[in-house]
Amino acid sequence: MKVQIVKDILSANEQIAQENRRLFDEKGVFVLNIMAAPGAGKTSLIERTIEPLRGRLRIGVIEGDVASSIDADRIARLGIPAVQINTGGACHLDANMVCVALPRLPLDETDLLFIENVGNLICPTNFALGEHLKVIVASSPEGDDKPYKYPGMFSVVDVLVLNKVDLLPLLQFDLDYFRRGVEALNPDVAFFPMSCKTGEGVQEWIDWLVERCRAG
Amino acid sequence: MKVQIVKDILSANEQIAQENRRLFDEKGVFVLNIMAAPGAGKTSLIERTIEPLRGRLRIGVIEGDVASSIDADRIARLGIPAVQINTGGACHLDANMVCVALPRLPLDETDLLFIENVGNLICPTNFALGEHLKVIVASSPEGDDKPYKYPGMFSVVDVLVLNKVDLLPLLQFDLDYFRRGVEALNPDVAFFPMSCKTGEGVQEWIDWLVERCRAG
Repeated sequence: MKVQIVKDILSANEQIAQENRRLFDEKGVFVLNIMAAPGAGKTSLIERTIEPLRGRLRIGVIEGDVASSIDADRIARLGIPAVQINTGGACHLDANMVCVALPRLPLDETDLLFIENVGNLICPTNFALGEHLKVIVASSPEGDDKPYKYPGMFSVVDVLVLNKVDLLPLLQFDLDYFRRGVEALNPDVAFFPMSCKTGEGVQEWIDWLVERCRAG
Repeated sequence: MKVQIVKDILSANEQIAQENRRLFDEKGVFVLNIMAAPGAGKTSLIERTIEPLRGRLRIGVIEGDVASSIDADRIARLGIPAVQINTGGACHLDANMVCVALPRLPLDETDLLFIENVGNLICPTNFALGEHLKVIVASSPEGDDKPYKYPGMFSVVDVLVLNKVDLLPLLQFDLDYFRRGVEALNPDVAFFPMSCKTGEGVQEWIDWLVERCRAG
């Protein structure tokens, strides 16, 4: 009986996610679900992506956090439409939260929508939001063992950004060990080493994203 | 009806946590529940605490991870009894997982037990394990806004370690902003800025912990 309840919740989420996806496709909005541990640099990645695409693609952002509007405020300061979802304790976004937030965005004038999930390497894995791409932002100070410890999320993502590579010389981070862990779980993932602080690696990500976004 | 189910689960956990606690008190074991975001340095903190206490307090460790035995292997290499719990996807330890792991530790010869929770700043907040102290390890690369974004955990802990302070000169981390966020939620928390890499701040933590452990 308990299993049945869990199954119903999951399939309800899947159903709403599919409705979100239909709306995105109808409006021609390409959608990314950005996931990461707390403080890995999800908002910094979005900020870094906004600047080079200004005038090329129209961007919108949904920010998910347990509390505060810190992240949506950062995005709004760039003149980009941003909606903050506060989950009030919940450890992930779900499709219904996104569905409720959508009317507050100008979807007819949006080409690319970032949904920044709650900082959590586990729970968001199982909740589709209607996105076209799942992105994980790992960061080098978290250590090279994260694919081995959090295989669920590393397995399901389409894109892996390794942020804060400017700190690598100061850390004991074995990039080969990290990559072997990722490849064993997800050999086809698109991998972008990057520093959102210095800008290193950002251009490769932008070029790839523009191509994927145009392919739909 | 759904609320009722959730309530039963929580009180079942609370009941087992109290049984764990009774066992710890009977055996004279002082227990810490170490929580943090992925890669903040929970295992490094335990490693750094083991060395100066060698010969003074008998230590045991329970390691919680979604997958892998990387952390228990690190502790076992120091000659310390360590048990790895793999949650197989679950995003936090609960009191029953700890209860099941306890017979594999020499509790009669243990003064101090570290339970390292799954890397997650949200879900472990609500699950008591029977511990005497809740500890959060924050790390400076995660950013100074974490108390504002994850108020639940910052509110309930007894101890806050801010790890990786050796990286502070390279980061845009406003320590006053961070501390104001913590103080608004939890004015009585014991605060230890630290670098588990360089050893800075470790001695203050050791002195405080030995005193608390002896006070019981």
